Amino acid sequence: MKLLVINPNTTQSMTESIGEVARRAASPGTQIDAVSPEYGPRSIEGHLEEAIAAAATLEYLQKTRGQYDAVVIACYGDPALFAARELLDVPVVGIAEASMLMACMVAHRFSIVTVLPRVKPLLEDLVKHHGLEARLASVRCTELSVLEIEEDPGVAERKLTAEARLALAEDNAEAILLGCAGMGPMDKSMQAALGVPVIDGIGAAVVFAESLLRYGVTTSKVAAFKTPQPKEYLGQSVFGAPALVGAR
Amino acid sequence: MKLLVINPNTTQSMTESIGEVARRAASPGTQIDAVSPEYGPRSIEGHLEEAIAAAATLEYLQKTRGQYDAVVIACYGDPALFAARELLDVPVVGIAEASMLMACMVAHRFSIVTVLPRVKPLLEDLVKHHGLEARLASVRCTELSVLEIEEDPGVAERKLTAEARLALAEDNAEAILLGCAGMGPMDKSMQAALGVPVIDGIGAAVVFAESLLRYGVTTSKVAAFKTPQPKEYLGQSVFGAPALVGAR
Amino acid sequence: MKLLVINPNTTQSMTESIGEVARRAASPGTQIDAVSPEYGPRSIEGHLEEAIAAAATLEYLQKTRGQYDAVVIACYGDPALFAARELLDVPVVGIAEASMLMACMVAHRFSIVTVLPRVKPLLEDLVKHHGLEARLASVRCTELSVLEIEEDPGVAERKLTAEARLALAEDNAEAILLGCAGMGPMDKSMQAALGVPVIDGIGAAVVFAESLLRYGVTTSKVAAFKTPQPKEYLGQSVFGAPALVGAR
Amino acid sequence: MKLLVINPNTTQSMTESIGEVARRAASPGTQIDAVSPEYGPRSIEGHLEEAIAAAATLEYLQKTRGQYDAVVIACYGDPALFAARELLDVPVVGIAEASMLMACMVAHRFSIVTVLPRVKPLLEDLVKHHGLEARLASVRCTELSVLEIEEDPGVAERKLTAEARLALAEDNAEAILLGCAGMGPMDKSMQAALGVPVIDGIGAAVVFAESLLRYGVTTSKVAAFKTPQPKEYLGQSVFGAPALVGAR
Amino acid sequence: MKLLVINPNTTQSMTESIGEVARRAASPGTQIDAVSPEYGPRSIEGHLEEAIAAAATLEYLQKTRGQYDAVVIACYGDPALFAARELLDVPVVGIAEASMLMACMVAHRFSIVTVLPRVKPLLEDLVKHHGLEARLASVRCTELSVLEIEEDPGVAERKLTAEARLALAEDNAEAILLGCAGMGPMDKSMQAALGVPVIDGIGAAVVFAESLLRYGVTTSKVAAFKTPQPKEYLGQSVFGAPALVGAR
Amino acid sequence: MKLLVINPNTTQSMTESIGEVARRAASPGTQIDAVSPEYGPRSIEGHLEEAIAAAATLEYLQKTRGQYDAVVIACYGDPALFAARELLDVPVVGIAEASMLMACMVAHRFSIVTVLPRVKPLLEDLVKHHGLEARLASVRCTELSVLEIEEDPGVAERKLTAEARLALAEDNAEAILLGCAGMGPMDKSMQAALGVPVIDGIGAAVVFAESLLRYGVTTSKVAAFKTPQPKEYLGQSVFGAPALVGAR
Repeated sequence: MKLLVINPNTTQSMTESIGEVARRAASPGTQIDAVSPEYGPRSIEGHLEEAIAAAATLEYLQKTRGQYDAVVIACYGDPALFAARELLDVPVVGIAEASMLMACMVAHRFSIVTVLPRVKPLLEDLVKHHGLEARLASVRCTELSVLEIEEDPGVAERKLTAEARLALAEDNAEAILLGCAGMGPMDKSMQAALGVPVIDGIGAAVVFAESLLRYGVTTSKVAAFKTPQPKEYLGQSVFGAPALVGAR
Repeated sequence: MKLLVINPNTTQSMTESIGEVARRAASPGTQIDAVSPEYGPRSIEGHLEEAIAAAATLEYLQKTRGQYDAVVIACYGDPALFAARELLDVPVVGIAEASMLMACMVAHRFSIVTVLPRVKPLLEDLVKHHGLEARLASVRCTELSVLEIEEDPGVAERKLTAEARLALAEDNAEAILLGCAGMGPMDKSMQAALGVPVIDGIGAAVVFAESLLRYGVTTSKVAAFKTPQPKEYLGQSVFGAPALVGAR
Repeated sequence: MKLLVINPNTTQSMTESIGEVARRAASPGTQIDAVSPEYGPRSIEGHLEEAIAAAATLEYLQKTRGQYDAVVIACYGDPALFAARELLDVPVVGIAEASMLMACMVAHRFSIVTVLPRVKPLLEDLVKHHGLEARLASVRCTELSVLEIEEDPGVAERKLTAEARLALAEDNAEAILLGCAGMGPMDKSMQAALGVPVIDGIGAAVVFAESLLRYGVTTSKVAAFKTPQPKEYLGQSVFGAPALVGAR
Repeated sequence: MKLLVINPNTTQSMTESIGEVARRAASPGTQIDAVSPEYGPRSIEGHLEEAIAAAATLEYLQKTRGQYDAVVIACYGDPALFAARELLDVPVVGIAEASMLMACMVAHRFSIVTVLPRVKPLLEDLVKHHGLEARLASVRCTELSVLEIEEDPGVAERKLTAEARLALAEDNAEAILLGCAGMGPMDKSMQAALGVPVIDGIGAAVVFAESLLRYGVTTSKVAAFKTPQPKEYLGQSVFGAPALVGAR
Repeated sequence: MKLLVINPNTTQSMTESIGEVARRAASPGTQIDAVSPEYGPRSIEGHLEEAIAAAATLEYLQKTRGQYDAVVIACYGDPALFAARELLDVPVVGIAEASMLMACMVAHRFSIVTVLPRVKPLLEDLVKHHGLEARLASVRCTELSVLEIEEDPGVAERKLTAEARLALAEDNAEAILLGCAGMGPMDKSMQAALGVPVIDGIGAAVVFAESLLRYGVTTSKVAAFKTPQPKEYLGQSVFGAPALVGAR
Repeated sequence: MKLLVINPNTTQSMTESIGEVARRAASPGTQIDAVSPEYGPRSIEGHLEEAIAAAATLEYLQKTRGQYDAVVIACYGDPALFAARELLDVPVVGIAEASMLMACMVAHRFSIVTVLPRVKPLLEDLVKHHGLEARLASVRCTELSVLEIEEDPGVAERKLTAEARLALAEDNAEAILLGCAGMGPMDKSMQAALGVPVIDGIGAAVVFAESLLRYGVTTSKVAAFKTPQPKEYLGQSVFGAPALVGAR
């Protein structure tokens, strides 16, 4: 079983860490390739960066299509998730989605602890987009940027644990989801500290991607995720048929 | 890894079939015990039968506690699911819940095809109970009882496939969930016939239970599923402390 | 008019108190029998205890069918309510449901004040199950167990009144519902203290059961609450036909 | 117990019929006065007519305040309901609201059968206003105007019964609500014909108003229904203090 | 382009201020007539006053029909809005509605800052009535009555700005709506102070009414807002045909 | 007033048509520039094409920032809308959003008639994303692709009108929204044929963008649409600071 775990941002050290977290969660027979797109922002903390990263992620997926049994998109905004499901025939799992679905099996309500306050509306929209708002207790932010989490994981874990405690005490949360792909290494120590399930989306997405393959099911292609029809693209594009691309 | 798959009804042939379906989905190292409660209805097609089967299921789980790494409740009403999460420390997965959560990763909207029309309100309530109504396209019933599915699987599969086609054509469904624990053997042939994901909850629950264990997470015990406190029960009960049971 | 008020737990003193509260609310011509099931937990503070009490309650109702004009289920989780509607032809009213429906006629939003925090998710699910979440201001818990309410009603009333004041001040509640069958005797004194409607479900359920009978309407039997079909039960059961019960 | 049943339209024959229906539902000791406002439309089939009838109804209620133990507003749009709750200290029950709340105790989902198609959006908004949309199966209209129902009740009942049958067969309804105050006399014959609960709001409102009084609860006056403060009104008004009215 | 801006209350100074605010927002070619009804309350702070003002507003609109290209209803409860859409063929815009729809284009979530706490349930119902509750962050009240805003605008603006700051800091609001027609003059100074969009409904309604006319669209007359049919009214009425009015 | 109307697809003839439609709706003093991005798909009929077009649109907006008073995004999926609001300080209006918000002022419920069935889930998600699902009657598709609308507008208008009639007759729609930027020229003839408001998003967005500017309000920058922080981008990018772009 060969999984592609794509980190939509372009910070190489974070991609490597994501790869390690994914391998730790994977079953023995599973091979994990952790990659970043060829271009795009160093981190994703808003709609603009997510939009650019989504396009870059889709280009990468198009170029590698046919090489993997399943794909995990490892950014907690699930960028390009629905487009990737259109583009590919193999299962595609987003880490936000996976963490939320896993939480549904171990908790009545979950909270997401995450980075800067500016992502709060974005994550609330994402939960609603997945139709899971009835299970959300809260989104709680810190003052940490995405890259600060990597730079000082000890500080980050302390701040995230403090917010998680508030979520348990004040928001009726029963499980904590780590709302950034860079938080994977903290899941088990935070779980030990908090005494409730702490779920990192990378781990959840890897075991769920394996589950989909083992059970034998992939993306439905009849409506929302129908394969795009061949289409002309203006400019150099990996998506348009070669003869068509570029003629204005 | 040792999983208990409990069929809350007391039809032994159905329990055996559920066991086979569960083993087919399980990973090599997973051992499956498929059982029924010691008492209760032969099939579950309404609130009363579900209530009695829930109590019987919980008694069985209490008697076997400590013997399994995870439990799957194999009836499409998820009877006793929340109570079993209270009672046990290991993960408990319901087959309706598991099929719906899996569908969320491969389809925008799903339909459930199931038995008699009388279960329709019950299943609509169940979907809402899990907070997933935004993802439900429809619940479609046949005139089949639970036990008729086992008796003539060929007829059952034809009728269910016909309803599934209507769900795809008229209700905007993109995946089909098999709304009864006895329908497991049909998943792959129906999937081949329909060309969309067809998900049996037993298979989904088994691979998800394995996923929870592999990732290392179990039921949150801080609120909704807090372990029951020791309590006196009137009458012979497996739940009350021996000294306390029976004194009116 | 003959009403059965069943307390699903097995604490006899509480059953007697429930009977008194019910009789106080009933019209002159109404006869009230207050009973408990033959087995089950002394109090109900979670999903497990509710599931066992539900089965015990249904057995009691089956044994007394035909003897009453209506049934009130006197536990604030409305255990076995839908199953009892299936089982019986006469009206069945739950005390949580009745208190909420009555509140809808005298307040824009209501809060429930109740026992231990562990019942909060259970009650929030119950409100949603009845489709009344738009009218709920909050569920507020105390540190009181069910049986502590009976043991020291003075302390209980002070604590509940304090939570009710917070609900009025902070949650925009306009009426207070007493979220446990043991709180019935406090309704009028709390109402006098708070200056807003305080509704005990037992009283509400009794007057509503009378209302259904006087107006001439009972449970619809065409879908969700269709009478169960005759069915074999394994083990000694009051539900299966005698000849069928017990053969494995 | 003295109830005022106010028909917000000004068709005297309909008011008399409403009075008869109300008296049929009332308990022996209850006195019913059925009245219409002093001005306003002959029937209410839209927002404009409802708005004028609401003002006329409120003037009537202001003039008779202190004379009744409870008020029933007998038009299926519940006109002036919330304003009347502000104005009066005694319970006020709307017939649409009462029919829906009663239906919640005997059916999982209900449909409303009513007059002209133009009231459909109005009734759907009303159900949502009461927060009960989760329990609504459908609103089904006929081509009958309000006054045609009185003119030829036989034809009306046939048409309404036909729509009710469609609601049961196609919309998953389990109870039928009569969506116009003029339909009261048909409830029992339609119930006999359809085999499901058929609820007329007048009967439901009368028994519920009695229930509120018997249990001892009235409108909460702390927020949504706070008594209006003394205020100057321009023009002749029953609401403004005499000295203040009319000075521009 | 000739717009009627009707202030449903009867405080002449407030009507004049509303007219000025409306003219400030209007395009050069737009003529604004600001008026009050001939009777009714001096201010609107609850359901009763709103109901009387609605009837008075509708009478005014009936008497002036045909004279205007569009109508703005300038009270933040949108009284008579749907009835006015029925009555007239030209566009009718409510100021609450307009402020909310405009906010949707510049903010993810908005809060309303308004007068006395008693209007909070009324405004929450109004937001839900317009189907916009997903965009509402909060309704925040002051202790100011409607008329106190006019009397001391400086104090009012300070209090409203303070509540707005709390909405931004605690409720995740991103824009502030001024929840009373008397607050129009404060919009730009509050916007400067707060650094987020501050929207007064009068300005929003005027530019939107112009937009509807420029784009060429008016109220749909096929269902919810179908023109009322000719109908007899009891009493002197501007709505009934002359020959019919008054005969009991 | 200078408006940029950007057609996110790269079909030049469609861009020109969009420009004409926009100019027809604009006020005399408004200058309209209609453009396409420098690269991307010829038409947008799914998630992948939308994602690529979104990135291309954002690059165009970044390059022209400071040149316009407001921006209209002229594709009925509102691609890049939220990201553009982050990126720019001037108002940004999406045509789907604008058509829906305008419809709210003239109809109780609206339907969208649009292109291929594959966009139905995408549009339903979009309506929900804007929080307007309570106002949606239906999304109705034809078998027309985006480019076929331009190729044979006569055929397209007939097919769209037929679907619109079904929406009015069967789905309770009261207004029709044209669900593709290429349908603008049909709005008035379809409105004449159907007798209900027919709204093209381009026209609605242009008059609303003017309204926002005239009233004096722009995007809130405090949370969801906070300006992106300066950030390094890998690869050639218009978004990253020059010194930072490209270093891996």
